[in-house]
This record gives sequence, structure tokens and C-alpha cells, in this order.
Amino acid sequence: MNTFGNNFRITTFGESHGPALGVVIDGCPSGMELSEIDIQPFLDRRRPGTSLLSSPRLEGDRVEILSGIFEGKTTGTPIAMMVRNENPQSKDYEVFREKFRPGHADFTYHEKYGIRDHRGGGRSSGRETLSRVAAGAVAMKLLAKRGITITSTIREVHGKTDPAEMEKEILAAKTAGDSVGGIVQVTATGCPAGLGDPVFGKLDALIAGAMMGIGAVKCVEIGDGFLAAEKFGSENNDPMTANGFLSNHAGGILGGISSGQDIVVRIAVKPTPSIVKIQQTRDIHGNVVDISVGGRHDPCIVPRIVPVAEAMLALVLIDCVLEQAKYK
Amino acid sequence: MNTFGNNFRITTFGESHGPALGVVIDGCPSGMELSEIDIQPFLDRRRPGTSLLSSPRLEGDRVEILSGIFEGKTTGTPIAMMVRNENPQSKDYEVFREKFRPGHADFTYHEKYGIRDHRGGGRSSGRETLSRVAAGAVAMKLLAKRGITITSTIREVHGKTDPAEMEKEILAAKTAGDSVGGIVQVTATGCPAGLGDPVFGKLDALIAGAMMGIGAVKCVEIGDGFLAAEKFGSENNDPMTANGFLSNHAGGILGGISSGQDIVVRIAVKPTPSIVKIQQTRDIHGNVVDISVGGRHDPCIVPRIVPVAEAMLALVLIDCVLEQAKYK
Amino acid sequence: MNTFGNNFRITTFGESHGPALGVVIDGCPSGMELSEIDIQPFLDRRRPGTSLLSSPRLEGDRVEILSGIFEGKTTGTPIAMMVRNENPQSKDYEVFREKFRPGHADFTYHEKYGIRDHRGGGRSSGRETLSRVAAGAVAMKLLAKRGITITSTIREVHGKTDPAEMEKEILAAKTAGDSVGGIVQVTATGCPAGLGDPVFGKLDALIAGAMMGIGAVKCVEIGDGFLAAEKFGSENNDPMTANGFLSNHAGGILGGISSGQDIVVRIAVKPTPSIVKIQQTRDIHGNVVDISVGGRHDPCIVPRIVPVAEAMLALVLIDCVLEQAKYK
Amino acid sequence: MNTFGNNFRITTFGESHGPALGVVIDGCPSGMELSEIDIQPFLDRRRPGTSLLSSPRLEGDRVEILSGIFEGKTTGTPIAMMVRNENPQSKDYEVFREKFRPGHADFTYHEKYGIRDHRGGGRSSGRETLSRVAAGAVAMKLLAKRGITITSTIREVHGKTDPAEMEKEILAAKTAGDSVGGIVQVTATGCPAGLGDPVFGKLDALIAGAMMGIGAVKCVEIGDGFLAAEKFGSENNDPMTANGFLSNHAGGILGGISSGQDIVVRIAVKPTPSIVKIQQTRDIHGNVVDISVGGRHDPCIVPRIVPVAEAMLALVLIDCVLEQAKYK
Repeated sequence: MNTFGNNFRITTFGESHGPALGVVIDGCPSGMELSEIDIQPFLDRRRPGTSLLSSPRLEGDRVEILSGIFEGKTTGTPIAMMVRNENPQSKDYEVFREKFRPGHADFTYHEKYGIRDHRGGGRSSGRETLSRVAAGAVAMKLLAKRGITITSTIREVHGKTDPAEMEKEILAAKTAGDSVGGIVQVTATGCPAGLGDPVFGKLDALIAGAMMGIGAVKCVEIGDGFLAAEKFGSENNDPMTANGFLSNHAGGILGGISSGQDIVVRIAVKPTPSIVKIQQTRDIHGNVVDISVGGRHDPCIVPRIVPVAEAMLALVLIDCVLEQAKYK
Repeated sequence: MNTFGNNFRITTFGESHGPALGVVIDGCPSGMELSEIDIQPFLDRRRPGTSLLSSPRLEGDRVEILSGIFEGKTTGTPIAMMVRNENPQSKDYEVFREKFRPGHADFTYHEKYGIRDHRGGGRSSGRETLSRVAAGAVAMKLLAKRGITITSTIREVHGKTDPAEMEKEILAAKTAGDSVGGIVQVTATGCPAGLGDPVFGKLDALIAGAMMGIGAVKCVEIGDGFLAAEKFGSENNDPMTANGFLSNHAGGILGGISSGQDIVVRIAVKPTPSIVKIQQTRDIHGNVVDISVGGRHDPCIVPRIVPVAEAMLALVLIDCVLEQAKYK
Repeated sequence: MNTFGNNFRITTFGESHGPALGVVIDGCPSGMELSEIDIQPFLDRRRPGTSLLSSPRLEGDRVEILSGIFEGKTTGTPIAMMVRNENPQSKDYEVFREKFRPGHADFTYHEKYGIRDHRGGGRSSGRETLSRVAAGAVAMKLLAKRGITITSTIREVHGKTDPAEMEKEILAAKTAGDSVGGIVQVTATGCPAGLGDPVFGKLDALIAGAMMGIGAVKCVEIGDGFLAAEKFGSENNDPMTANGFLSNHAGGILGGISSGQDIVVRIAVKPTPSIVKIQQTRDIHGNVVDISVGGRHDPCIVPRIVPVAEAMLALVLIDCVLEQAKYK
Repeated sequence: MNTFGNNFRITTFGESHGPALGVVIDGCPSGMELSEIDIQPFLDRRRPGTSLLSSPRLEGDRVEILSGIFEGKTTGTPIAMMVRNENPQSKDYEVFREKFRPGHADFTYHEKYGIRDHRGGGRSSGRETLSRVAAGAVAMKLLAKRGITITSTIREVHGKTDPAEMEKEILAAKTAGDSVGGIVQVTATGCPAGLGDPVFGKLDALIAGAMMGIGAVKCVEIGDGFLAAEKFGSENNDPMTANGFLSNHAGGILGGISSGQDIVVRIAVKPTPSIVKIQQTRDIHGNVVDISVGGRHDPCIVPRIVPVAEAMLALVLIDCVLEQAKYK
């Protein structure tokens, strides 16, 4: 299933070392100005090779819009966007052709499909998120017109909350041939009340599915999240005032529907499974073997997940905004 | 959106104080023996009025199968099931007709629909989960035939991990006119490798959406979940052996696809928002008012969420099992 | 697949001789007055036992609304409706338990599911359309509020276009133990321009699928339909005026999108396959056997298909109306 | 809605004069050999500029596969395919920027979207079917492996059934600045019994929707189609033998499910609306104006619809074949 959304539907394609990656957006309202310069900054933000902290793979990640635009405006027809892969270096991955990298999708793809593109993880590569970010950029432009903005912060890297310490943790892990994870918080401001749909289209359910569908995410919280389990009802409920609420433990969602408060989501990101340290694994013939995953990897994927998480939240919200229009 | 699933599709209906609740299952394979006695025990397990710890509302919750069965077996046509409401006592809720109960869907339903069934929460009532449990019972019977079983444990209530202490916490909260939450872990054993579908139909994404779609759930974790964010990659990866894995930090899912290990999910449940303690809220006219939510409520919803969480996991898994059959 | 529609979604259930038939409507806008008296007249119209021309099966077909209504109005939650079967007389069908009735779904259900409810055709019975008519009644009420009305005429029965002759043909067929078919035209008036969605959600494509999905329909035409194939472009194009069109060969749809003209659909209905005349068939063991399908059948299903065809058109149109709202 | 299918899902994009057209196939089983040489012959068959009877637009229509293939085989991930537009000549269409061509989607797109790509019809161009044909080529390869083949014949052009006379009609229409339509019959051989799904996923309903969704199609018939309405039941039923049927009036579908006989579909195609002859229309300002649609148009679209109709039938069938696998 490579399609996401019911109203603003995106369909993504592409592998890490294939000819190209891209996305088709179906359901974008007509009449909005849109060109590559609306998309490119978002791709640049998630692009590799931009700092010591991220993978040194050099990709221009230049987006081309293939359809759906007429004289600079959306027409209501599908918007296809494509980025060509320029620097795949597939030879680096030849050593993994028959070995399953621990913590990766290698084994499960092999089991599911009986064939696996081992070059850079194929479709399971984080590079796939490029398509989501491109689509998310369009979603964010639509949301901005409706007064909705999305921001995020890295709350924690390997247990550290201070940015300088976070960076130190990442560099230390890199030096050790290891990796670290962290926590990202994403917030949407300006959402109207009424988004989300009981009982299986709850806004929090859609967000949880969207976020857990980002590779490396292992936990999703809404509002106070995990902490809610340890509180009394009298502490956790948000009292109301004439115009709103006195607190936001709920994270902006009640009964699966937005309340008009900020929507607050946190995700826990696991440490990158690709590490130089020797690990035990098996190959496709069933032999136990050692593996060292060198190559161009991020010692901490957290910073590069930020634009992806924002994109996913934007995609959920624009879908709900268009859905809600049906009933107004 | 009251339909869940792509292959084993359930559509639920009904309000807390309406004539009936029920579910239509579409896509159930033919030829399986099925009757009310397969369903009733699951409904009895989530039924209110069975202990001091739960709501005293007395409901028989007798299920009737309306279609889809011929001479005791499923035929491949829709299986409709219905439970009539017998003991609604709607008068108790008259006081909430114009007041929004804090922590409830009252305000957001009002904003979304402009009309709200205030009687027992209407469609937003936990009573809605009865339909899910009935459908989940069918899913579990199908899964059992394929060697897949689902179990769960209450890991924590209001911070306590010992069952006797949990019970004390619940009774203390009840006495105080307050409520508490907790943590539930659900495990599926016997899943084949290969379930789940990249990139937007990942098994963990589907599970996260399903679980966060249960009222009162505020956090979903897969495998080590939140803790993964604080580990090194070398600690978090699960090394492989000739026949499987040496550990299961991943919770049985890699790259969104089941690995054949146990699937492990944890959810954090907020304290029941309905409490006797006085809270501040507003009414539909914008006046700030006090509210005490008496009546028949669970001081802790955690025990009654257990069968619901199991049902949701079963619904996700049978859907993926049928999906996977297409590619075999 | 027992669900129809993307925005106004109906899910139907029930067999001819099971406990009940019904439908769940998901996506009905809130705030519309609705009760059983809005539905019952439509069911009465398609009810058997009302004339010499139709099946003598006596059914009250009393509809009960099970959910989705609060104080006489829709709430935006699922509307479940149910009709109990009262007069099934399953014994009449015992003779068909192992024989495949020609022209019926008996053989194909057997092949697909390996099990078949032979009593009255089970789920493949025309009685299934009761659920569609009930849902269509709600759709028509919503459409009427938007100025859209649906009407239909029987254009032909067994080649005759005069109503008196049609009736004679039906009675003659009945006397001969045979059956006849005919042509029905359905028209929607008052549709705004803009309904339907390129390229796979074209309004004519949706209508064709909806109509061909009615049992016994073998041909669907839009506008001039078949005749368009025999005309010159200069004859078939509809010239435009300042305010509209000079003709309506297109049947109100251009490029899959409504033009604001009347939407005109014609369907060809085959003669009822259930006939008393002896036919050759086979049984489930592969033996060639004779069969006479006595019992309570319509010698011509055309008059009873009329409300079903109207319902299906209404369901397509309300779905498109709600879809279109997203982009306004 | 630019996505078609539930299991073998295609999403198409592109306009007649935009940068490119293409399709993403999601749900293609893994392990099948596939490359551009499997696709190109199908595109060549529908390509313009190949005879006096078709549009002189010169397009190479070279397809490029962008994803989903690894070492010559499908991997189960999305297969994206793209064709760049090379010879658009948009200036020819400048005259139609503000005029609505009769019989075209110009007016309805304008009404729906408020913006319209007038260059070559934009998304409503027949050129869009290129994407369907590319996807259909993949579907046909999958079907062929399962013993299912699709063929078609032009039954009629402007009322003529003899091929030489058909050609004469087309050339005469061209000379007169006019256009003609016709009838195409498509047949699938080798389908197993059991495809299609009651009650809203009936095989004939899916086919009717797919065929009516091809621009210019105004009528769809299954089996005897329209003629069934004029027969007695005793004539129209197909008697069964020990191994099959004695006739195929039903067109291979009973109760919406394939019977194992040939599936027979006929479509009526309207005359091309683009004609040189002067017609009356209006412009976007409401003025009545004359129009002559010169340029590169087919005087009869029937021959070029043949590969499109075959593609659509293939897409429906592979979708049902994969669906059916779930229940085996």
C-alpha cells in the first residue's frame, strides 16, 4: 500500500538506487499557485550530505513537477513530482546481497516478496521519505492558507535534552561505529475544531498510523501520552473556559476530533540500525555470519526525521480539512 | 468513518442509548463454523456490571447474528450482528444536555456536527467498542485456525504493577470520586513472517492506528517502544541466528513487516474522564459552569479495554493475513 | 464487497431467507429530520405481493432504524436500518439445494465460496435490493434539499412500448411459465454542473457500475447511448447557447462531469431466469438434470427494478455532491 | 479520482501538453520479469500518427520504467512508468482558450475547477489513456501467466460491419470535416469461475464502470446485452451440461461472478467531438460564438480505443484474480 489519504491522496514510488523516486498527489484543490520552488526547500532540509551528523551521500534531490500545473497554478488534476537518483554507489551494497542487516527490513522483505533489492535498502530505504516530504510541502502550503502551521522540536537524543549534548552524543556514537535515537515533538497550531471522524477515522488514530509508518519510529504519544496513565482523572482532564481550555493535556484532540487547541504529537525514534560495529546475523542460505554495515549512514536519524514527521502531520491534517468540508 | 480494514472489513453502528449497537463484517472467508456462542463470551468479558471495579450498568449484551450464516457456517456474505440496549437510563444524562463534560467528546462532537446525542455519550461512548469485540471474536477464530493467538496483560494501574495494589488504587480513586489509568500489553504469537505492507500499510502503522483509535488510549508502543530512543543501535538491533532472532526489541516487526517473532504492543490508557469530583467546564451557551459526572462509570477503564485492544489487534492481523494471501 | 460509495457509504447485509436484511449508512450529514416514515414508502414500492404482475411472497417489509438518529434528526453517526424476513417458506427451495438454476448465481456462488445458501437465492436474491432502496430513500431526501429529483419510466417490456401491451406480455409470459425483460429509463433533474471526477471517478462510469450492479441488468446507456455510435459528430455534439445547451445527446455528462442538464440513463433488464418451463441444468455432482423453477417469482422484474435503479442513481449522485463540496 | 483497482491499483497522471504522462502500479506481485519491451508494443498500438485514419500528431511515446524493478524482475514495490510529451504544438489550441468545444469536457472542467488547461484538452485528452495502456500491458502479462487472454474486434463503424466499408466511412467523414463512431467487442478467454464479488463488486459492474470510464464510450453491454430485454427467459437462460454451458447469452457472468465461459463485453463509441465543421458554442464570458475544431484529431476514435478497452478489461480481471486469491 503506497497510497496515503482519502481526500488528498498521495501515491509514492521509487527505490534508493533505482532510476528515480517520486509521488503523485491526487485530490489537490485547483487554483493554488505551485511550482518547484515551493517544494525544493523542504527536500533540501531532509537531504543527506549537509553536515557531519548526517550521511555523506551526495544528492542534489532536484524535484521536477511532471503534471497538474497550468500557467503556475494547480488544476485539480494529479500532481506528479520526481527526483532522479544521481549518486547511488550500489557497489557498496554488494556485500549485503545475501546477508540480512540486523534491525533492517532485509529479512522481512525477503520473506514477503521472495526477492529483495539489496542496494541501499531498496524501497525500505529512508530515501523513500523524500516523496512524502515533497507531498507534505504541498499540503503545508494548503494548510497555511487556512491558518494552520506545523513546527517541531527535537526533545531528546540518547537521553540528552541539551542541543550541544545531543550533538556530542551523535558524534560519539559515530566514532564508536554505533548509533543513537531520540524524541521529536511535532505541533500543529491553528487547527479548527471538528477535524477527525469517529470511530475509525479519529484524528489521533490517523496521526498515530502516519507517524508509526515512518521507519524507525517505535512509539507515538498524543498530548501527555504515556504520562496520562499515571495521573488521576481530575489532573488529566482539561477544564473549559468560556473561550477554550485551561490546559492541554489532551494534545488538542477529544474523542478523536480536534478541539481547536494545539495538536501535540511526540514520537520515539530508534537508533539507526546501520552500524559499523560487528553484529551477528544470518544470510539467505541460513548460515550465521558477522556483519559490519559501513557506508554512508546517519549515526542518528532524528534530525532528518523532523521534516518527515512534519510532512506526515500535514498530510493527515489536509486530508481531514478536505473531509470536513463535505459536512459544512 | 465507521469501517475498518481492507479485506476483513467491519462497519459498526449504534449509540449508548439508542435502540441497538452492532457490526457488519464483510470479507469473512466462507466455510467456517460460526454461531452466537463463538461471540457471546467475548462480549461477556467486556460487559459492565460484573464487578465493583466497573460500571454498574446492567446489560445482558445478548448478540444476535442477522445474516451471513447458512446451516452453521459462514457463506462469504456479510455477517451482521446486533445487540439491543436494554438498560439505558437516559434521564441520568439530562443534566449534561447542555454542558460539555471535560475530557469527553461532548464539545468536539458539538463543534463537528452541530447536534449531539448527550445520552451516555451517544456514539462516543465506550459502549461502541462492543461492536469491535464482536467482530474481533470472529477474527480470532479465523486467526486461531492459522495458529495465531492473542493474549494481554495489565502492566500497570496508576503506576502500580502488583495486581492487588492496582485494585486498591482503583477503589481508592472510586471512593475519592476520581479515576485512574494504566498500561496494557497485547501480544500476538504464531504470526508468520511477511504480514504488513510497505510503505503506508506497515503492520506497526496499522496497529498504532487501530490502538490509538480506542477511546482513552494516548500512547502506543511497539516492542521496546519509547525505550528504543535511549539505546545504542548495537543494543537495540536484534541479532539473527540460523532459525530466528536472539532478542525481540523490535516487537516482531521490521520495516513494517512481521518477522515471525511475537508481536508486542503496549498502550497507555488515560484515567476515565467521567468523575464525581467537581470540575470547571462550559455549556453550549458559553457560560462557565461546574460539573460533577456521577452515574454509572468505571473508575478505571483499563480492565475493560483489554478485550477491546485484543479485538483491534486481531482485526489488523486477519486483514493482513488475507492481504498476504494475494501474493502467495 | 458489500459497501458502496466513498462519502455517503452504504454497507448492506442479509439473505432472502435469513433472519433479516439491512443497511448501514455512513457519512450522512447531520441535522436532517429522518424517521421510518421517510423510508417505508420506498420499501412498499418495491415490495412483492402487491399485484398479479409480481411475486406473491407476502412480506410486510417494516423498516426499523437502529442508530444514528437523535430526537428525530440525523447526528452524523451511522444510520443502521433493518427489515426482518417474515415469510420465507424455505421448504419450497429444498428441491434446488443440489441443482443449479439456469441464469442464476447458483453455480457461480458454489464455485466461488464452496457453500451456497440455496434458500431463495440467499444473498443473490433480488430481495437484497431492499437495503439499497432503504438507503436510496435517505439519499433522495438529501438530494431533494439540494433541488435534485429522480424519476423513471418503463420504456419497453418484451419489445412493447404501450403500457397496456406491456401488461399483456407479462401475463402471457406468466401463463406460459416463462418470463420477459425490458428497458427502464431513469432521469435526474436539477443536478449542478461539476459532479463526477476524472479520470476513474467519472460520473457516467460510476452510474454504469451502479446500474450494472443491479441483478438482471445487461446493458447501460448514457444519453443517446448505443445510437451515438451510428451518428456523425456534427449530429451528436450538443451546441451551446449563452445559458446552456440546444440538445442533450450527451445525457447530461461531458468528460465524466455533469453539465447541468438532465442526467439520462437507460438500462436493459433481462427476463427473470426463474421460469416454470422445463430447462436443462446440472447438479452439484455433475449430473445433467431437468429443472422447473416454480414458486413465488416475478414473470417480469422490470417494474420492481424501477425503485432500485432510482435508488442507485440517488446513491451515486449524493456521493458526488458530497465529494464536490470538498473543492468548493 | 485517478486511482483504479483495489488490489492491482493504478494511479495515472499527466496532461496532453504537460511535461509527461505516466502511471504508478501498486500491488503487482513480485518475481515477474518485466522491462520496457513488455510495455512499448502496447503503446505503439495506440500511438497517433500511424495511419491516415488517425491523428497526425507525432509522438515517440517511449516509456521509461522509474521504479519497482530489480535485475529485470518485479519486486512487489510500486512500478512507476513515464512517457514524455515531445510534440505538443500548444499554439494550435490558443484559439480554444476561452471557447468551449461542443461535446468536450471544456465546459464541465471549467465549471468544476474554475481553471482549465485548454492545450489539447489537458487531462481530459484521449492521450491520458496512454497510462492505462501501459498499466494494462503489465496486467495482461500477469493474466497470460494464468491462462487468461484478451482479444477484441471492431464490430461496426458508423453502422457498417465490413472493414472496407468502415474505412470508407472514416475517410468520408474526414473529408467532410466530420467524424463517426462505432462498436467494439472485447472478449476474455480462460477466466476461472469465481471472479467478482457480490453485491457491489460484481464483475459486470466493475467492467461497466471501467468501460464507461473511457472517454467517448456511451453504452456498455455484457453478453447479449440490450437484446436480452427482448427475449423470453427460456431463450435467454444458458442451459448447463455436465462440463459447462450450452450457450453464452450471459457473457460469462452470472450473479456478478464469472462462470468460466468467455467474458464478452461490447461498447458503443460516440463520434469524435472534435470536427472541422462549424458548430455553435459559447465562450467563458457567455457569448455565443462559432467554432471549428481543426488540428490533429482522429475522424474516428474507434480503432485507437481498442487497446484501451482491452487494457481496462485486463485491469479489472487482474484485480479480481488477486482478490479471489484471498479466499482460496
